[in-house]
Amino acid sequence: MNETVTVDGGSVTTPRGFMAAGVAAGIKESGDRDVALLVSTRPAHAAGAFTANAFAAPAVQYDRALLKVRKPFRAVLVNSGNANACTGAAGLADAKAAGAAAARVLGVSAADVLVASTGRIGVRLPMARLRAGIAAAAAALSADGGPAAARAIMTTDTRPKSTAASVEVDGKTIHIGGMTKGAGMIAPRLQPAGLHATMLAFVTTDAAVEPDFLDACLAQSLDLSFNRITVDGDMSTNDTFLALANGAAENTRIRAGTPAAAAFAAAFNRVAATLAREMVLDGEGATRFVEICVTGAQTWDEARRCAEAIANSALCKTAWFGADPNWGRIVCAAGRAKVALDPDRVSLDFGGVPIVRAGVDAGTPETEKVAAVSGAEFRIALDLGVGSHEFTVWTCDLSYDYVRINAEYHT
Amino acid sequence: MNETVTVDGGSVTTPRGFMAAGVAAGIKESGDRDVALLVSTRPAHAAGAFTANAFAAPAVQYDRALLKVRKPFRAVLVNSGNANACTGAAGLADAKAAGAAAARVLGVSAADVLVASTGRIGVRLPMARLRAGIAAAAAALSADGGPAAARAIMTTDTRPKSTAASVEVDGKTIHIGGMTKGAGMIAPRLQPAGLHATMLAFVTTDAAVEPDFLDACLAQSLDLSFNRITVDGDMSTNDTFLALANGAAENTRIRAGTPAAAAFAAAFNRVAATLAREMVLDGEGATRFVEICVTGAQTWDEARRCAEAIANSALCKTAWFGADPNWGRIVCAAGRAKVALDPDRVSLDFGGVPIVRAGVDAGTPETEKVAAVSGAEFRIALDLGVGSHEFTVWTCDLSYDYVRINAEYHT
Repeated sequence: MNETVTVDGGSVTTPRGFMAAGVAAGIKESGDRDVALLVSTRPAHAAGAFTANAFAAPAVQYDRALLKVRKPFRAVLVNSGNANACTGAAGLADAKAAGAAAARVLGVSAADVLVASTGRIGVRLPMARLRAGIAAAAAALSADGGPAAARAIMTTDTRPKSTAASVEVDGKTIHIGGMTKGAGMIAPRLQPAGLHATMLAFVTTDAAVEPDFLDACLAQSLDLSFNRITVDGDMSTNDTFLALANGAAENTRIRAGTPAAAAFAAAFNRVAATLAREMVLDGEGATRFVEICVTGAQTWDEARRCAEAIANSALCKTAWFGADPNWGRIVCAAGRAKVALDPDRVSLDFGGVPIVRAGVDAGTPETEKVAAVSGAEFRIALDLGVGSHEFTVWTCDLSYDYVRINAEYHT
Repeated sequence: MNETVTVDGGSVTTPRGFMAAGVAAGIKESGDRDVALLVSTRPAHAAGAFTANAFAAPAVQYDRALLKVRKPFRAVLVNSGNANACTGAAGLADAKAAGAAAARVLGVSAADVLVASTGRIGVRLPMARLRAGIAAAAAALSADGGPAAARAIMTTDTRPKSTAASVEVDGKTIHIGGMTKGAGMIAPRLQPAGLHATMLAFVTTDAAVEPDFLDACLAQSLDLSFNRITVDGDMSTNDTFLALANGAAENTRIRAGTPAAAAFAAAFNRVAATLAREMVLDGEGATRFVEICVTGAQTWDEARRCAEAIANSALCKTAWFGADPNWGRIVCAAGRAKVALDPDRVSLDFGGVPIVRAGVDAGTPETEKVAAVSGAEFRIALDLGVGSHEFTVWTCDLSYDYVRINAEYHT
């Protein structure tokens, strides 16, 4: 067995036995692609995680219900341009009808099709356009349709985001593909079989896996990927992460606790983390990618809350945009996060540059501090000085373009 | 007794027996005024509330300790341009030395002088300049120095903020004056005898009051004023609210539970609320003042958390800047606030315009919705449909200027 994970420029159709398409159905006013179909040519196990928002959209409610029954699935229907959220009972009926329409065209059962939506909240889906789009997408399905599908799920994203990885398991090469979209209302805190964002992410694999292991694999990937990112701190009504495993690689079914499981999980995590990172890099108006690593916390949850308080601070985010090494804003955000810390033992680094030692300025010259926060990516390491727990968050800065996009774009 | 509260354009020196001054001591690079002195010509009772930030600045630590002893005070020394925060034991010694220097110049005891600082975090106070500023301020003290003091406590504020009110109590006219400064790192959650912001606010009164009543009066004013505002969600290391009552009106000492107490509290609340409102109106880059009233919550704390989640949402704030009646962002923010709500009973209004009824779009024409959010001030009323508790928050939008100020200004 070889645990080396290879990541390439693939997509959700890189794994064998998957087809996809992305078409324009007129749901977006721009005329861009807005309906994606992802189909497995053979029954696939599915695992999912969804938003924790109290206004979980009909698509989320529908998928949660479908995933409660342990059974294979065949397809995922995604539309962009309309979130079908806060649309009441009629919206839920629309979500079901959309899934059923896709099933009919594909010749499978309605219960075999998962759905996802992203876009404007509070407006009913234009069902006639969506049905026509479903028919067009089904006609366009192909084994290299992954990139088109990745394009069709975009909203304020500036570019499609796909990736794929492969790993050897028991002498067979297994592929894992993925696609995702952001780019605002991004602070997903997904929970397996009941999670939340509008990030959407879809992972495909041709591996044969035990259903329980796929669930566990998706769940444990979250804190290494989508649950460690935030663009703007706003958890969406539609956040959805779905994984489909169709067994086309014909390997021995992977079960938890085996070396094969470790290899598969490593590849799965790489795909999920790559997609999550890409989502932040393409965050609304983002000009810098910032990794915030909080260490020395009393609990894992306090490390997480402290890192998130910094990542979501408008004052920190605007300082990063301005390449301003203003560390006062960072410690101030940590100080209001309601976590245990020792003001006299706190230390802070930008990249490898010492900024704060024992709670006071480390004396690094201003020019070195500025250089440390002037790149397209940098790392902030904050040690709270009271424990051994840590958490890492990925975020971006807050620029003029963020304001422009969100003041002028009516979601 | 007449409970009518009159509010005018006064200041902290409107009440009898107070003098103030504001001078430029070179702490700010701009050369603007940066040292304020507020002095009572007779011993005054004091009450205070301060930031809850774990990195509470030396001035906050020092005042908290002073206020633990029930005794009269004589003065407050304030500097802007330097927060003296995250400066360790040396910073605390500086705060004490500054208070002592003011006491010496004024001929009072060091323990009679409270202190406050606002400005850049992490840099030691320039003590020689501050001492010279204290001497200059003491020499400039006057009974109409309130406006100068209000100017000297500013940082990114665009204008000084003062007010005064008067009320008749037992046949005597009692005056209450106040000044405050913002304009960023504003989400104070002050706690009596242990609160936090960098908002600074100072209230003076010539009323004679029982010390315990002054404490209670300040504490109960918070949720109607500074603890209901947020500009950017960032609670500062230096937030301070101090009230001084010197008895120069020679009224019968006001004690809790009396009609006089009710009249005094009404005037005190008016002054505190006016200052808090002015702070939001002058929030960094603010172009609109938004009142968010959450009703129908299961608890007061849930109403508060829900209103704050909306008020601090970057997506909501940028939509308001763009006069975008995008209600999806508001319900989305409410939905992630971890509060009880009924998605099918939620209702939302902008001004008096129905936006959401029973969880779905109320059908109001887009032009009416846009008009409702296009003014310099508007009100958002969200009912969660599950209880009878409510809370109101005052906030502002997030504009290009917010980004400019915070990307270019090194606090």
